[in-house]
Amino acid sequence: MANGETVTTIRVRYSETDQMGTFYNARALEWLECGRNEHFRTIGLPYTEVESRGVFLPIIEAHIRYRGRARYDDELQVVTRAAMSGNARVRFDARICHRASGAPVVEGYTIHACTGGSGRPIRPPDWFVDALGGRPPRAS
Amino acid sequence: MANGETVTTIRVRYSETDQMGTFYNARALEWLECGRNEHFRTIGLPYTEVESRGVFLPIIEAHIRYRGRARYDDELQVVTRAAMSGNARVRFDARICHRASGAPVVEGYTIHACTGGSGRPIRPPDWFVDALGGRPPRAS
Amino acid sequence: MANGETVTTIRVRYSETDQMGTFYNARALEWLECGRNEHFRTIGLPYTEVESRGVFLPIIEAHIRYRGRARYDDELQVVTRAAMSGNARVRFDARICHRASGAPVVEGYTIHACTGGSGRPIRPPDWFVDALGGRPPRAS
Amino acid sequence: MANGETVTTIRVRYSETDQMGTFYNARALEWLECGRNEHFRTIGLPYTEVESRGVFLPIIEAHIRYRGRARYDDELQVVTRAAMSGNARVRFDARICHRASGAPVVEGYTIHACTGGSGRPIRPPDWFVDALGGRPPRAS
Repeated sequence: MANGETVTTIRVRYSETDQMGTFYNARALEWLECGRNEHFRTIGLPYTEVESRGVFLPIIEAHIRYRGRARYDDELQVVTRAAMSGNARVRFDARICHRASGAPVVEGYTIHACTGGSGRPIRPPDWFVDALGGRPPRAS
Repeated sequence: MANGETVTTIRVRYSETDQMGTFYNARALEWLECGRNEHFRTIGLPYTEVESRGVFLPIIEAHIRYRGRARYDDELQVVTRAAMSGNARVRFDARICHRASGAPVVEGYTIHACTGGSGRPIRPPDWFVDALGGRPPRAS
Repeated sequence: MANGETVTTIRVRYSETDQMGTFYNARALEWLECGRNEHFRTIGLPYTEVESRGVFLPIIEAHIRYRGRARYDDELQVVTRAAMSGNARVRFDARICHRASGAPVVEGYTIHACTGGSGRPIRPPDWFVDALGGRPPRAS
Repeated sequence: MANGETVTTIRVRYSETDQMGTFYNARALEWLECGRNEHFRTIGLPYTEVESRGVFLPIIEAHIRYRGRARYDDELQVVTRAAMSGNARVRFDARICHRASGAPVVEGYTIHACTGGSGRPIRPPDWFVDALGGRPPRAS
């Protein structure tokens, strides 16, 4: 299941609502992170271990489409997959939908660099790349 | 200055940092909102007034590029501009940089629908469109 | 189990850490809310239903003791109980500890007023008071 | 003015509201931190410098009374003072009120331990204690 999809269930917190009565837009990025976290655990490489082995994944790009409302206490599913993007980046694609109805809430992706603890870019080690499903095929 | 750029100064809060020692990625969306808020006030149409006159601007898309680090207590500038995008959408472009050095931190945009209080899409009224610099020219 | 303790399990999110490497202090109040939410569901009265039946519980006081560290990805348990406090207030007591070791993280309480939708204090209806275990005995 | 009160002005962000239409309760703790930050700068000892000189101030207790509503875009003032509490703790007292009317929003305090970078309690150095107004008189 190294490169499959991981499903994470969350419940909209009161603190995540805003005065429009739906979730505040920045929370979507926090939910995507919950999805990444669970995805790493599912592929056998908890992100705490990634960092403790000296690989950090600072975000360099994020894109979100807001597809539908979600309200306080709604149960949502974050569906996440990941793949290397080039030699030194990781891309996560995610969609968030209502657990019961499947109605879409958010779609998006984030792209992350691979760095060492000092913030300097590194070529990610094999144990990391392998867990993410390997390097992408080279364009010929 | 109705359609120029608005500069908003913020300071990175301790609550906005994460264990990597820089700001947590979702905070960028909150800072973009601070920029939109100040931009509306600057063009003479505080967003509180927009909502009290019955126009809401739920976000439908966001894109962020993370360009550099920012740490606790750093002073940042959010530079924001806005324009109608088609007949019923508003697009805000923003860049965030360090106040002292100008070093880039974030670049991004958000796109917002225009709705009434019930969440139903509306064609935005003239007072709103005019404040945003008018409708875009039609492609011929 | 109307007036027992409810146990809610949460996992510390990356977004909840700060540069000190532990959770940011304000997150404790958000976790207490997760506990209240789950407690209401457990006693058969989801808080969404409380609000939809016209009872709101704005917070009027909070007290937190920080007892220990918790780090990104740690699993925590929020143990919550609730009782009427006087005729028109509700008090929630909570403690948060590490799921595996039981080591304490946070202890605290919040006190909430009962209001109608307009924010005006109300005497809470019987269905609400009964779910919370009834009115406290009067001092003689 | 080493030990006087510091006034910090903030504006309620959209992200700080919740579906009740006022600020979400945990934001109060973030605002208190904004006040502490500004207070340290005002007494000539920015908190970034405190940490870079090896003194950390993890929170050990917080108490908040919610005194009134504040809505999106309201301008608030955080009035903060600080003093040593015993030999190795610092206590900050704060009140938050509406800038225009002075109407109260929040009153509270936080108590912080003094630790080194490893999290171990330390007796705070003189430069720190002096900036905070000195050690409290000993009870006789």
